[in-house]
Amino acid sequence: MGFNTFGKIFTFTSFGESHGKAIGAVVDGCPAGIRISEMDIQKELDRRRPGQSGVTTARSEEDKIEILSGVFEGSTTGMPIAMLIYNKDMRSRDYSNIKDVFRPGHADFTYEQKFGIRDYRGGGRSSARETAMRVAAGAIAKKFLAQKGIGIKGFSREIAGIVAQRTDCSVIEQNPVRAPDMDAAKKMEKAVLAAKDEGDSVGGIVEVVASGVPIGLGEPVYYKLDSKLAEALMSINAVKGVEIGSGFGSAKLKGSQNNDAMHISRGKVKFSTNNSGGISGGISNGDDIICRIAIKPASSISKEQQTVDRRGKQAKIAVSGRHDPCLCPRAVPVAEAMVAVVLMDMYLIAKARKK
Amino acid sequence: MGFNTFGKIFTFTSFGESHGKAIGAVVDGCPAGIRISEMDIQKELDRRRPGQSGVTTARSEEDKIEILSGVFEGSTTGMPIAMLIYNKDMRSRDYSNIKDVFRPGHADFTYEQKFGIRDYRGGGRSSARETAMRVAAGAIAKKFLAQKGIGIKGFSREIAGIVAQRTDCSVIEQNPVRAPDMDAAKKMEKAVLAAKDEGDSVGGIVEVVASGVPIGLGEPVYYKLDSKLAEALMSINAVKGVEIGSGFGSAKLKGSQNNDAMHISRGKVKFSTNNSGGISGGISNGDDIICRIAIKPASSISKEQQTVDRRGKQAKIAVSGRHDPCLCPRAVPVAEAMVAVVLMDMYLIAKARKK
Amino acid sequence: MGFNTFGKIFTFTSFGESHGKAIGAVVDGCPAGIRISEMDIQKELDRRRPGQSGVTTARSEEDKIEILSGVFEGSTTGMPIAMLIYNKDMRSRDYSNIKDVFRPGHADFTYEQKFGIRDYRGGGRSSARETAMRVAAGAIAKKFLAQKGIGIKGFSREIAGIVAQRTDCSVIEQNPVRAPDMDAAKKMEKAVLAAKDEGDSVGGIVEVVASGVPIGLGEPVYYKLDSKLAEALMSINAVKGVEIGSGFGSAKLKGSQNNDAMHISRGKVKFSTNNSGGISGGISNGDDIICRIAIKPASSISKEQQTVDRRGKQAKIAVSGRHDPCLCPRAVPVAEAMVAVVLMDMYLIAKARKK
Amino acid sequence: MGFNTFGKIFTFTSFGESHGKAIGAVVDGCPAGIRISEMDIQKELDRRRPGQSGVTTARSEEDKIEILSGVFEGSTTGMPIAMLIYNKDMRSRDYSNIKDVFRPGHADFTYEQKFGIRDYRGGGRSSARETAMRVAAGAIAKKFLAQKGIGIKGFSREIAGIVAQRTDCSVIEQNPVRAPDMDAAKKMEKAVLAAKDEGDSVGGIVEVVASGVPIGLGEPVYYKLDSKLAEALMSINAVKGVEIGSGFGSAKLKGSQNNDAMHISRGKVKFSTNNSGGISGGISNGDDIICRIAIKPASSISKEQQTVDRRGKQAKIAVSGRHDPCLCPRAVPVAEAMVAVVLMDMYLIAKARKK
Repeated sequence: MGFNTFGKIFTFTSFGESHGKAIGAVVDGCPAGIRISEMDIQKELDRRRPGQSGVTTARSEEDKIEILSGVFEGSTTGMPIAMLIYNKDMRSRDYSNIKDVFRPGHADFTYEQKFGIRDYRGGGRSSARETAMRVAAGAIAKKFLAQKGIGIKGFSREIAGIVAQRTDCSVIEQNPVRAPDMDAAKKMEKAVLAAKDEGDSVGGIVEVVASGVPIGLGEPVYYKLDSKLAEALMSINAVKGVEIGSGFGSAKLKGSQNNDAMHISRGKVKFSTNNSGGISGGISNGDDIICRIAIKPASSISKEQQTVDRRGKQAKIAVSGRHDPCLCPRAVPVAEAMVAVVLMDMYLIAKARKK
Repeated sequence: MGFNTFGKIFTFTSFGESHGKAIGAVVDGCPAGIRISEMDIQKELDRRRPGQSGVTTARSEEDKIEILSGVFEGSTTGMPIAMLIYNKDMRSRDYSNIKDVFRPGHADFTYEQKFGIRDYRGGGRSSARETAMRVAAGAIAKKFLAQKGIGIKGFSREIAGIVAQRTDCSVIEQNPVRAPDMDAAKKMEKAVLAAKDEGDSVGGIVEVVASGVPIGLGEPVYYKLDSKLAEALMSINAVKGVEIGSGFGSAKLKGSQNNDAMHISRGKVKFSTNNSGGISGGISNGDDIICRIAIKPASSISKEQQTVDRRGKQAKIAVSGRHDPCLCPRAVPVAEAMVAVVLMDMYLIAKARKK
Repeated sequence: MGFNTFGKIFTFTSFGESHGKAIGAVVDGCPAGIRISEMDIQKELDRRRPGQSGVTTARSEEDKIEILSGVFEGSTTGMPIAMLIYNKDMRSRDYSNIKDVFRPGHADFTYEQKFGIRDYRGGGRSSARETAMRVAAGAIAKKFLAQKGIGIKGFSREIAGIVAQRTDCSVIEQNPVRAPDMDAAKKMEKAVLAAKDEGDSVGGIVEVVASGVPIGLGEPVYYKLDSKLAEALMSINAVKGVEIGSGFGSAKLKGSQNNDAMHISRGKVKFSTNNSGGISGGISNGDDIICRIAIKPASSISKEQQTVDRRGKQAKIAVSGRHDPCLCPRAVPVAEAMVAVVLMDMYLIAKARKK
Repeated sequence: MGFNTFGKIFTFTSFGESHGKAIGAVVDGCPAGIRISEMDIQKELDRRRPGQSGVTTARSEEDKIEILSGVFEGSTTGMPIAMLIYNKDMRSRDYSNIKDVFRPGHADFTYEQKFGIRDYRGGGRSSARETAMRVAAGAIAKKFLAQKGIGIKGFSREIAGIVAQRTDCSVIEQNPVRAPDMDAAKKMEKAVLAAKDEGDSVGGIVEVVASGVPIGLGEPVYYKLDSKLAEALMSINAVKGVEIGSGFGSAKLKGSQNNDAMHISRGKVKFSTNNSGGISGGISNGDDIICRIAIKPASSISKEQQTVDRRGKQAKIAVSGRHDPCLCPRAVPVAEAMVAVVLMDMYLIAKARKK
């Protein structure tokens, strides 16, 4: 498996640098006969697009997806699906700012040290621009999962310390921070704009809920569903923590509080609570899958910071340009996509594991 | 890659059920010429052994490790290293308690539903007994890493809501809860014993710190160091959350607070803080690697709980037997082991990636 | 994937040295609910056992298989199946013969150079004794495949230049060379014994036929059925060539001769010939899968040979001990096993690939 | 690992259909700092290009390669290298010939049966056009290997039963059949043209020799060098057999003839013969690596053949269009490429396996 490939049966490989010629992905292992169009993918990409509102970067990226292979007469053929987005107008930028000085909180320093060479243009491969291709791959997975009755919904649970108290999925796409609580959304937006005004950024927590997941996805003991979700979600830029169900909160509970009691309702096994986040022993138990990720405040801030340069001298840096003052709103579709690709892979694996 | 195998170059495969004939592991990809003995491994296993104190289960497992292959005249040969622990006196138990009734918080229900058959004896494959083999594989990785100057230290950061305020590694193995703070340790121990008396259990947070890690471990973008640590740690029984560096705390910070400023100290690049947990862009940055995992309260409690049985009827269950009232102390060596295998794998991969 | 692991969904990992404590394997990814017993495996192992006749080595290895995990109440549970064979009476041998001198045609030299250390006892890991575990894993695969109507049959097609002209599978196990032609078998046996008398060895060709294979096994373009069969078969000790269907013979044919014409017979698509060996475009086409492997004459011969020793001096060696004068008869069950594990893996993958 | 990905550390993923929008590949795991240009790759592609002479197809494909990522200022960056070739003028073709009728010897039937849908345009994914991307990936591997002193040379050893008796590498690119023997080349060319005139095709044997390979590439026992070469070469379209060193010829030899005696020459260990083809126990022994592949006569012939159609009726087909009457000349760079990617992967793995 390549270092830029994720998954076992349903896999995707991404490539491309932020300001290079193009970014792209190759999705492999998708069953034949799934109806898919560039529109299906574009729709998801547009949710991740910069410039959607004042709380995201003002950069304008067209991000027009093109399917190059694996789809014939509107259906997947079982062959690898290559997708491409050409980067526009990348040549004229001035990168003298970040070419020789390492931005704190970025991968500049580690890439340079590890590889001895670094495409510094816009962060190169380490840029969050790569996540567009996760969204593209996730769009295919979502299409497949929807046919199996599986839905995936993400939102900002917390931004700048403000917690969404309600979980009203109908309002998520109606506010710029993608919170499931309009009251909290307004406060969050205000906090983000305040930080932006200061040349600073804020962090938050994104939550993803998958419903309709059948019992039995996930393989013990090193291909567990929670383990692969953790890997997938932690690989997203700026994510510093992952939790499932009661997560870090479970550390403060007693067993009698945290165990999900079971009962029979209309002839079916039901759980009285969902502290497990829908996963028991690494296998989906039929309840909603619940994951939360901690997203650090964006590293690119215009406030001056102490750093070092490539020649080993101390330096000051103020990262100019139009950056996201809060990554959560645009991280929502990315996190959904990663959950989708894990679930689809697990779905196909579970089929293979049957007699 | 098998479902019970972890890693890419340095890999291990575990097998065996809690109360079956034996448990074991096959470690593959270990370089030749590493001095290793059964003693090296036994030493680590003894830290995970049950019956060490009042805060762990009173069960007595001898857990005598035997190396079957891959070591010749005291050195690894580059061939797969198979290790085995025979289970003792397992035949006479009475499993009627858990054979037909699903224990809340356990994998009983999902294993039964997924596989249609389940080795119910002591939890079978889903038992935390499997983690002994992680410790065994980790002992080999630790031996290798030590030669490279990399040390790994784990401890209980929090138990039952009590947080260790100090990080004094010298006291960790001197208190039964493995806390790095003797004052907190006493309170933690008391809280665990109180829960035990009530027939209940408590959760906590285990922290692992790896020091001496060179810059450059971890591969962008789907073999990142943090991503693989998250996968490895989340696969441990009872873990519900993983965070790196400032983790979930970063969600409440501003960029100017969370970014680790860089400076030059004695000619070397240093970070003023370590909110990144030693990982930037998925690659180790030379600072200490810091991970924390949320461990739920043990599911096996003697308090009566509401559940269902295999015939779809509601039932009550009180899990008898000698169980851990808090999993943290014994989870410490397991978490260390998983960090060790990830680091060793990444170390070898990083070598392969050079010109 | 470890270096000693084969397969993607149905995988096996082997370990152990020829004269170490034990050899073993861990089979992973086997569906739950397959009836399997140590007897099923022992039966196949006995076909590979040394000492069966004058044409194989006179060494007597008991090779008693023990299942350690993954089977409960006679059925597979979906968990890893560990199997073990303890090596008997290995301590007292004298290895001074091969400890410091490299045997021509063996892996002694390359292991020593690559790893810097080598378990020289009986060839260590490079010994064909490892193939016992392939047979064990294959026995499980054969059990699964038999339930799907897939049968696998191997035999010696050629030995010492003598070609079996008939393919009468009923006589294969009735002659010591495992030829499907009693007349050829007698001549082959005579040739093998003549070589043995001279302190020499002979080579041959083993053929494996899989019947009842459904259309659709194999994945384009780097997980093709023929490609994986080639990998699997070439990994067997002493194999120097693999061919499918008309194989090297096709190099001398014209397209009009080699193409398998298609027709309809009783409403089904049939091929008039089977030059493709049952595989078109890397995917099984419903016809018999036919593979042949070239097996070199055994390297261990008592005739004196020119070689070098560990100190870089020229030396003479006559490999003493009881060795196989012809490897084909015992290679038959090994080749069958490798075909079986590939087909089972492909069968499970093909299921995962469906909508 | 995806189904369209090859390799472990140095990997490549190919995508695209013969007459779709584009074909491409993503090369991953390439070390940073290798000088590479589109010219390096184009040069190799031109050797595979159709229309080079009368013995290959008269189709004209421009096959202009474009590097999209992973190369910065002329050097690899350690990031995935995506390469693309747009297919030109593909829309106007008439595929009624092959849309509903299965071509004998092709993958039409198995793709249709397996996937239920098939991009029939020019064979879609099953077309040998995919091999262009193997050549592109191989060009990068060759560049790396050349820096390590490893050279790879392929040629037609046999065509239409005519065997090249000499191995004069200087003449390979000077004759249209790529034979290392000018006398044989002329006869081969004549035989190919005669078959072409009859509307038929001929098969042959391609040989690849890798020189300068250091001792120690290949990992026992399921990542052996010969085993991976067999997998890689057998995955090439039309290949029906693979052999290493004396290969199928070894089946007719005695051990005393086939074993490569060892001696000391100028202080170095040398082999008196090279029946092993440079590989002992799955590991390179320092001698030339020698592989040969059997290439069946091209399936596409204009002679009328018996077949069936999609509705299950018998039919006749004469495959029109400009096809290769002999695949060997153009298979030479493809086989070289596959050997190159295996060797580079093994080279990097061997580094990872050291202490």
